[in-house]
Amino acid sequence: MKSGDVEMAKSNKEMLVASIEKEIRYISAIIKHKGREILNNYPITPPQFDALQWLLEEGDMTIGELSNKMFLAFSTTTDLVDRMEKNKLLVRVKDEKDRRVVRIHLLEEGKRIIDEVIEKRQNYLGSILSNYSEEETELLNIQMLKLHQEMKED
Amino acid sequence: MKSGDVEMAKSNKEMLVASIEKEIRYISAIIKHKGREILNNYPITPPQFDALQWLLEEGDMTIGELSNKMFLAFSTTTDLVDRMEKNKLLVRVKDEKDRRVVRIHLLEEGKRIIDEVIEKRQNYLGSILSNYSEEETELLNIQMLKLHQEMKED
Repeated sequence: MKSGDVEMAKSNKEMLVASIEKEIRYISAIIKHKGREILNNYPITPPQFDALQWLLEEGDMTIGELSNKMFLAFSTTTDLVDRMEKNKLLVRVKDEKDRRVVRIHLLEEGKRIIDEVIEKRQNYLGSILSNYSEEETELLNIQMLKLHQEMKED
Repeated sequence: MKSGDVEMAKSNKEMLVASIEKEIRYISAIIKHKGREILNNYPITPPQFDALQWLLEEGDMTIGELSNKMFLAFSTTTDLVDRMEKNKLLVRVKDEKDRRVVRIHLLEEGKRIIDEVIEKRQNYLGSILSNYSEEETELLNIQMLKLHQEMKED
């Protein structure tokens, strides 16, 4: 391979990366909009959706852990948790062994709402992928798992 | 194929869709966070980034057209445009043929900022995809173009 070929290969990958960045930006914007539309039918805000999603998928955690996951300040997360506790979506629970440790725990109503909202999001994506064969859907899933993995290792 | 097989195939695609929904949700959250980190070094807010992106990629447009693209109320978009005009990122321009039509036009400083921010986003994605071969990058690009296309047709 001549040095010029290496240069060309690099530019081509850069062009592909630029295209992928743009497509993911557009896809995220459409999904964000769709997600807000879905939330219109539920008594939770987008940040509350994010918080409930983490509690559903990772179980009970402290406010500090949740604020790290959500990339939010501790005080912002505390306000968010206060409002959701007031609305009976979750509850603060003291650790049995160390009473100084407080974790937040999803209540039945919080679980019901987050389950339903995620199901609506899945139905939306399912309708988008209705023309995909099972094999194409599997390929997309593999690509998304891989991309997410690379991002976590960053 | 027995009727039970059809049921199984359906469930498998549904499970794949559920996984893809979750992965895209996580990928979007990470990119949103990274995007905000990048914007910390620039004098624009996330909604201003969205507006500048549309003007960069689709050229001059009316406030009505921009508010449709951004899924924002007309009044919200007007406020956004006012602030950016004050900051000399863009300017309102009257249509030469029909002076009642006003379009917004990117100014040099607005273009410089949006070009730089998008380049930073591309650099970030490039580092995430550093282990991808050119062929893998091409496959991801094809998948993202296809997914975006299906979403636009929705």
